[in-house]
Amino acid sequence: MRKVFAAIITIGDELLIGQVVDTNSAWMARNLNEHGIWLKQRVAVGDNRSDIVSALDQVSVNADIILITGGLGPTADDITKPVLCEYFGGKLVTNEEALANVKHIFEHMLKRPLIERNLRQAEVPDVCTVIPNKRGTAPGMWFEKNGKIFISVPGVPHEMKGMITDYVLPKLKEYFTMPFILHRTLLTAGIGESFLAEAIEGIETKLPDHIKLAYLPNYGMVRLRLTAWGDNKDEMEYELDEKFRLLKEKVKEWIVIDEDITIQQTVSRLLKQRKQTLGTAESCTGGYIAHLLTRDAGASTFFKGAIVSYSNDVKKEVLHVSEETLSATGAVSEETVRQMANEALHLLRTDYIVAVSGIMGPDGGTPSKPVGTVWIAVGNGERTETKKTHFRFDRERNIELTAVHALNFLRIFILSTGQKS
Amino acid sequence: MRKVFAAIITIGDELLIGQVVDTNSAWMARNLNEHGIWLKQRVAVGDNRSDIVSALDQVSVNADIILITGGLGPTADDITKPVLCEYFGGKLVTNEEALANVKHIFEHMLKRPLIERNLRQAEVPDVCTVIPNKRGTAPGMWFEKNGKIFISVPGVPHEMKGMITDYVLPKLKEYFTMPFILHRTLLTAGIGESFLAEAIEGIETKLPDHIKLAYLPNYGMVRLRLTAWGDNKDEMEYELDEKFRLLKEKVKEWIVIDEDITIQQTVSRLLKQRKQTLGTAESCTGGYIAHLLTRDAGASTFFKGAIVSYSNDVKKEVLHVSEETLSATGAVSEETVRQMANEALHLLRTDYIVAVSGIMGPDGGTPSKPVGTVWIAVGNGERTETKKTHFRFDRERNIELTAVHALNFLRIFILSTGQKS
Repeated sequence: MRKVFAAIITIGDELLIGQVVDTNSAWMARNLNEHGIWLKQRVAVGDNRSDIVSALDQVSVNADIILITGGLGPTADDITKPVLCEYFGGKLVTNEEALANVKHIFEHMLKRPLIERNLRQAEVPDVCTVIPNKRGTAPGMWFEKNGKIFISVPGVPHEMKGMITDYVLPKLKEYFTMPFILHRTLLTAGIGESFLAEAIEGIETKLPDHIKLAYLPNYGMVRLRLTAWGDNKDEMEYELDEKFRLLKEKVKEWIVIDEDITIQQTVSRLLKQRKQTLGTAESCTGGYIAHLLTRDAGASTFFKGAIVSYSNDVKKEVLHVSEETLSATGAVSEETVRQMANEALHLLRTDYIVAVSGIMGPDGGTPSKPVGTVWIAVGNGERTETKKTHFRFDRERNIELTAVHALNFLRIFILSTGQKS
Repeated sequence: MRKVFAAIITIGDELLIGQVVDTNSAWMARNLNEHGIWLKQRVAVGDNRSDIVSALDQVSVNADIILITGGLGPTADDITKPVLCEYFGGKLVTNEEALANVKHIFEHMLKRPLIERNLRQAEVPDVCTVIPNKRGTAPGMWFEKNGKIFISVPGVPHEMKGMITDYVLPKLKEYFTMPFILHRTLLTAGIGESFLAEAIEGIETKLPDHIKLAYLPNYGMVRLRLTAWGDNKDEMEYELDEKFRLLKEKVKEWIVIDEDITIQQTVSRLLKQRKQTLGTAESCTGGYIAHLLTRDAGASTFFKGAIVSYSNDVKKEVLHVSEETLSATGAVSEETVRQMANEALHLLRTDYIVAVSGIMGPDGGTPSKPVGTVWIAVGNGERTETKKTHFRFDRERNIELTAVHALNFLRIFILSTGQKS
């Protein structure tokens, strides 16, 4: 079995001064992996000729496939195309198909006049095959050299994704016999990485060479992933299922879900299965829990809405938290989240509600309620359960941790209630 | 003037199979840049000895400073420490300070028993200087070899950030005389990248070698950034201000803000300056606009709350959108967002309201209202303005575009109203 190795080169100064977060690479990595292509290295360089050339030289030593994104825009800082043209010894010529596409996009989609600068986007090196771009004006390019394949696509995420999915992956399948790469993933809560490692040491040390275990801690939860590769898919599936079964047995008390999905997707699925509905009442998370639940398609089957009561006025006037409670116990208190939950359940008319109120920082903490103090309530009209937690990190992380913990508290509450008949 | 160059190596299989998005690199890049250090290259490799070693060899050719993150956890897949120890020719010894830190964290913060695996985290190569980690158990390491500095810190974001800020950047300043790197950034809306380029071509072609212009398109807005580097800060500030003034003059009709902040930060600032308040009524964005506005500290001074009316029931019962409107014009219509805005303004008692309703996809589109159709309303009680837009991308992008466009529509509306006296 020979592995097929890939490398990614992302081009753009914005990646090197930290102005943008590179989300493209993760998407490409996941899609390559699902197709049995092993990503060996990712490199980011600036819009600089010699840095691009040395990255091409470097990564092609160990990779069969080199995916290049970025630097294909119409402006002067975008130099990927001329650099690749020179690297592969070609000259720029206008591609008729790409030209028709540029014209079509300007006439029918952008409804703007076309200028010389845009027409030049249809020029490509004469030593490449053009990769069509249905979503934008810059064509992609496919080069072959010394048995390696070099693919250049724009850095605009939806353009890149469309071209990789529609053209690049299908064509790569014709060139290479890929091995299978299979994963089994489970999500745990309530146990740290090192304690998990103790619990499963017996399994981990006995894994064969072609199966690897990874620990992926994220916001107070740890994901465990088994990865196997090989040629015989059925045999691998069987072996991996067996190892996964042993793993689940060892960590069963901490398992949230035995798939590679998030806590919000776990809650969503549970509610869809039960045909039940949910709403949120959010103070400190400012709508973030509602956003997590509605980010994926299909949320309308279970999610009805949210009351974001960021200010005390809204807590009082919309959620009817009593003036007495707010002055006696404060906005971050068991009694406040309880009242928020109960009134929101009434207003939104859902089967379940989750309510949160806390101090996310950096300001607003007091000696008795330091930054990171959070009260969570979950309820279904029959009973309401509350929980106090305390995080100790920065604001962004506190918002994320609060959402994740509230959703897990809700998940346990839902599981503790009977199904609707 | 000699530039100081850095490279980043991120280590972890999770980065190569696309399970996580690397946000650390952008943070490190930004902070290096602000300190006058020019990031030359970023490389991501897996938890694999030979890949780590070849990345170290590769990047140290062109960099003075090599920042390494990841692979320092307590589990068997984390191999960065032994690999670095071997690479720099040392042996692992227990560091007393790091050991005291591990013990402190387990006793006082985690309140869990300490196991052998955790104690080993206090071991470091005897050829490095220890970088203290106040936020976690894995110490950082500082190596020097052939005049280059190699720094290894954990991949956990808040641990990495703390160590870079508290220790690494101050210490690097003692080693190198950094040039100044200065930026001027402005945000535009309503004009594409290539048309901006036409508009400012006269300025761009006349920029001196030490000033660079970059175009950063993002969600229908384009950011323009001028970057200068050199030793004489005052002279650079003066020169850059002059170029920036010319640039702003050329693109003035499209400028959102002449700083490197987001549209939500622009709106937040405007409201704080005016001492006015805001609320949102969100259907298709599911609380995302409220989240954007409350993500930064200080939101409580202007943001009061949101009604997320994801279902039609909540539109009717909480926001009093009439049954007639919903059946006659549907949930995605001018009349619906107008009623949502008006009732939310009344419930939340804010100076301004922004309301959105749309079809984010992939399902739910119809021939007359395809996926991407969005209605936006903004109001202040005296008048309500509405706008229909149409996006054509995927769900995640539609949610983001809707939020950004709604906030820009709100910004223009706020500017069109007089200040409160």
